[in-house]
Parts: sequence; structure tokens; C-alpha cells
Amino acid sequence: MAITMLALYKRPEGGDEALAEFRRRYHEEHLPLMAKVPGLRETVVEEVVQHFYGEDIVLVTRMLFDDRAALDAAMGSDEMRAAGRNLREVAPGIVTLLVTQEAGA
Amino acid sequence: MAITMLALYKRPEGGDEALAEFRRRYHEEHLPLMAKVPGLRETVVEEVVQHFYGEDIVLVTRMLFDDRAALDAAMGSDEMRAAGRNLREVAPGIVTLLVTQEAGA
Repeated sequence: MAITMLALYKRPEGGDEALAEFRRRYHEEHLPLMAKVPGLRETVVEEVVQHFYGEDIVLVTRMLFDDRAALDAAMGSDEMRAAGRNLREVAPGIVTLLVTQEAGA
Repeated sequence: MAITMLALYKRPEGGDEALAEFRRRYHEEHLPLMAKVPGLRETVVEEVVQHFYGEDIVLVTRMLFDDRAALDAAMGSDEMRAAGRNLREVAPGIVTLLVTQEAGA
């Protein structure tokens, strides 16, 4: 049963410049580190193009794994630890990180 | 180019009972109303099964439309207005509603 790690990024403090810098480092540093994580089957990066209400989220990334065991193995890997360290630099205080599974799946 | 309406629901105030009531009304009332919205191609409801950090989100729903025009038509429909009224009753103050599009798509 496929499982998703869902990352939601809020708008960083510091205006357009901070947002551009976050996007640049996310794409240039963080995504290449995540791509090395064992068992990661697919990564879908989505830009927020409109906001109706609630939290000011600007970027949403879905990382798909084959099953819970694959996700657990990934979470324990050196590659994920490196990606996590990078994330704390690139996106301090703006990320919500969840694991989701399709209802009824 | 496919476009997604993304709804993120935070844990409601009121403990397990409030959460169960939210889930019940969401599935029994809100999803059937959303299913009537013209142009909605697919709805994927995901439960949050693990929380690493950030906002305490419990439910994530992705609603897919064929393109921006289909989404705009849906947003202007009587069916979406009815679903929106229902949402304000079922999920007051706990929803973040965004439109996302795959980066580079």
C-alpha cells in the first residue's frame, strides 16, 4: 500500500527575496539530496498558484514510497539524515512534514 | 494542464469526539456535495497517519480538474457554492484551501 511523505512549506519571512532564495536552495540543494534517499519512488513538486484561505503555503511536495517498510527504511537512512539537516537550513520554521495514506486504501 | 484544489484540515478543537464528528460530516455531507461539482475529475482523500513537525493536519484532500478553465467554471457553480456553505459548518476555522500546479508542468 503506497504511502506519501507530504511536505508543506509556508512563505518564509523576508519578502520576495527570501522566497526566491528558499526556492533556489530547495531546488538546487534539497531536492538532489532527497533524490538519493533509498526507496523514494517518485517526487512531485507543486507550486501554490492561488490561495483561498488558511495557512500561507507556497510549495507542496509529495514523496511517494511503496509501503510503510520502505518509508521506515528511508527515514533511518544516512541519505535522509543528510536531507533533513539540509532542510533545517533551507526551510527553518516553515515546513510541515506529514505521512499520509489514501483513505480506505 | 491538470490543476489541483488542495484542502488541508487541521485537528478541530474538542478532542477525539470533535475529530470523529468532523470526519463523519466530512464524509457523509461534504464529499457527496463536492462530487456534484461540475468538472471535478477525481477526488483523493488522504488520512494523516504520522506527524513529524509543523501544523497538526489530520486530513488532506486533493481535487483534480483538467485545467484552469475547468476549475474556474467549477468555482462559479451553484454546486461549489453549496459545498462551500457546508464546509463552513463542517470545518470552521480548520481548513487551508489552495490551488496547486505541478512545477515545470
